[in-house]
Amino acid sequence: MTDTASIADLLQSLPADLRERAVARDAADPLARYRDLFAPSEGLIAYLDGNSLGRPLTATRERLASFVDGPWAARLIRSWDEGWMDAPTELGDTLARVVLGAAAGQTVVADSTTVLLYKLARAAIDARPGRRVIVADTENFPTDRFVLQGIAAERGLEIRWITPDAEAGVTPQEVAAAVGQDTALVLLSHIAYKSGYIADLPAITRVVHDAGALVLWDLCHSAGSVPLSLDADGVDIAVGCTYKYLNGGPGSPAFAYLAAGLQDEVRQPVQGWMGAADPFAMGPEYEPASGIRQLISGTPPVIGMLPMRDMLALVEEAGMPAVREKSLALTGFAMEIADEYLPGVRVASPRAPERRGGHVMLDHPDFKRVVAEAWERGVVPDFRPPQGLRVGLSPLSTSFQEVATGLWLIRDLLG
Amino acid sequence: MTDTASIADLLQSLPADLRERAVARDAADPLARYRDLFAPSEGLIAYLDGNSLGRPLTATRERLASFVDGPWAARLIRSWDEGWMDAPTELGDTLARVVLGAAAGQTVVADSTTVLLYKLARAAIDARPGRRVIVADTENFPTDRFVLQGIAAERGLEIRWITPDAEAGVTPQEVAAAVGQDTALVLLSHIAYKSGYIADLPAITRVVHDAGALVLWDLCHSAGSVPLSLDADGVDIAVGCTYKYLNGGPGSPAFAYLAAGLQDEVRQPVQGWMGAADPFAMGPEYEPASGIRQLISGTPPVIGMLPMRDMLALVEEAGMPAVREKSLALTGFAMEIADEYLPGVRVASPRAPERRGGHVMLDHPDFKRVVAEAWERGVVPDFRPPQGLRVGLSPLSTSFQEVATGLWLIRDLLG
Repeated sequence: MTDTASIADLLQSLPADLRERAVARDAADPLARYRDLFAPSEGLIAYLDGNSLGRPLTATRERLASFVDGPWAARLIRSWDEGWMDAPTELGDTLARVVLGAAAGQTVVADSTTVLLYKLARAAIDARPGRRVIVADTENFPTDRFVLQGIAAERGLEIRWITPDAEAGVTPQEVAAAVGQDTALVLLSHIAYKSGYIADLPAITRVVHDAGALVLWDLCHSAGSVPLSLDADGVDIAVGCTYKYLNGGPGSPAFAYLAAGLQDEVRQPVQGWMGAADPFAMGPEYEPASGIRQLISGTPPVIGMLPMRDMLALVEEAGMPAVREKSLALTGFAMEIADEYLPGVRVASPRAPERRGGHVMLDHPDFKRVVAEAWERGVVPDFRPPQGLRVGLSPLSTSFQEVATGLWLIRDLLG
Repeated sequence: MTDTASIADLLQSLPADLRERAVARDAADPLARYRDLFAPSEGLIAYLDGNSLGRPLTATRERLASFVDGPWAARLIRSWDEGWMDAPTELGDTLARVVLGAAAGQTVVADSTTVLLYKLARAAIDARPGRRVIVADTENFPTDRFVLQGIAAERGLEIRWITPDAEAGVTPQEVAAAVGQDTALVLLSHIAYKSGYIADLPAITRVVHDAGALVLWDLCHSAGSVPLSLDADGVDIAVGCTYKYLNGGPGSPAFAYLAAGLQDEVRQPVQGWMGAADPFAMGPEYEPASGIRQLISGTPPVIGMLPMRDMLALVEEAGMPAVREKSLALTGFAMEIADEYLPGVRVASPRAPERRGGHVMLDHPDFKRVVAEAWERGVVPDFRPPQGLRVGLSPLSTSFQEVATGLWLIRDLLG
């Protein structure tokens, strides 16, 4: 954030103890220098919503401008042969290496999260013919639930809903009780979009496999926030977005992971020329590309893939373990402040570090009003109905002083 | 094109008669001044593929860079309320007004052409229950055919293929012979991607309606190239891309038109949060937004929507009738040159202006080699199997001298 004068003024209004803690933690933060790489943001005091839309890097400005001059203006259609055709899988492999814990050849960048959820859920269900049940949970993000409702209606399938603790998330025991020989697919979020609860991905994946079903993990709040090891954990399918902790910009394309062992078995339904074995053969019959490429349908959104490359490079340099360590320190600090300084506010997220994602949900009946007022004042968290203030703390772009000043303004607004 | 030295040298190598014709037509071109607004392209002599990927405008460079600074970096998540949420329909309405001949509230920008074809074809078929036949043609673009093959397989439907004259396109008589009481959907291209033939859209639409079916027009090669009047012609559904004559950049999002009168009846299958009546209510059940907004599935690709805005503004200023007039002059000139100066090359596109789109297909057994060599030399047409050289002439960015020099190089390469 650039408005250092305002932050400095606000910092002076904090209790000395809180101010000193924030300053000390920033001084000790090995990742602190990364903050200077983000584009300045006039008038902003604290950005507490990096899990909804990551801030742009200064480098992204030049990357977009030079893309116009170079690959687009100068090379034009020739750029398809010179990199664009491979961009979905090349960028997918980078994502796999940097944030997913996955080997190359299993990840593609394409479409939106919703469209990829549709394609992959359909594909998974078709790969388990005769099984008529989809298992999902009521706390999952709306688009995940809506996609499944559409598929269930069109295919005459049943959705078996798990209703987890809303302040935590789905447990392996709940999944074990829900799956059976009738289950084709289990679709869950790895990190709950409200509570920030981290599901026990390895254990739940085993439970799903024991029932002979496939699991599709929504990684929207995980990718770039917590270390993942999709290959080692035996994940079948995963989908996630890139505009949160990967800073791809509003509506940047999503990613899908499909384990190598399933790529011959699982076929997605939106057959397009860019997922064909030879897109420029233009023959009479669709023949899917081998490997991960068959997940592509239409022309790859090349421009939308550019900004996330800058962030992926930073995350790779910093390393996911260090990113996670700072994330835990930031969310821990936010909870400390809520506990000590925000009267009537309840932490509605897991306290245990191993179950706590990159954001913290705070709860108070006045938060709908407070969030609207905070936005006007340059403090930007998210509001989630009915009365949640969600504090999303993107590790590379957020400082401890920012968390302290932002939440102190929330305290003022609570009155 | 900036490499004016090379163009000047090449121009001098042309026969005097051809050179003079090209120079005279550029001098008389009322749209000539628009060429200076496109980003320079070092080393390029002639771009003959504007119907595959439009050139960027110089303004697009700054538009992207200032987007990073402003709506993204400074306003962050607040920009969703300040314009991004409405971008798919606001930009759709602009497209409708400038190039589609359609009233507001019927067009959305989203996804890719392939994904929108899938969603809208599925929606149309569901709106005609009991009818088991899809009518399409063998000369349609591969992705259109592949999408239908996928849907037909999953729904147990029959595709009744029309095999039109490959150097022309589908006629109303052929469609009349193919449709019947069993027909749910007819999917055709308005302008054939190979021959450039303009189908008789009003007559075919009437034929389809007489059979009680719905028509889905692929407008990929039409939007921004020929005037359209979707409302007046009674079109049901249309889909098209924005990276050709609308210069949206590689993989820019596509558009879909759904006539107002069908919006309550036709429901697309990929139910996502951004197409819900209230995306932030996040309730248990999907309730589609009213009107065109229900066609949206995932988070709108905001960055991908930026570049086309610059081109749409130019097209609106120039006006589609003037754009079309120059387009016909350019394609007419290309055919003249082919007839007079390219031995052994056959024009495989309609001669009649009223049936001729914005590109011309030339035919010669050596064109696969010739196109590859031309690309190296800075002359960039497209190759289409088995032996087609496709000359796509985007009216606002292409000069007559460019057409002459480009095709003269093709002549040299034919040897």
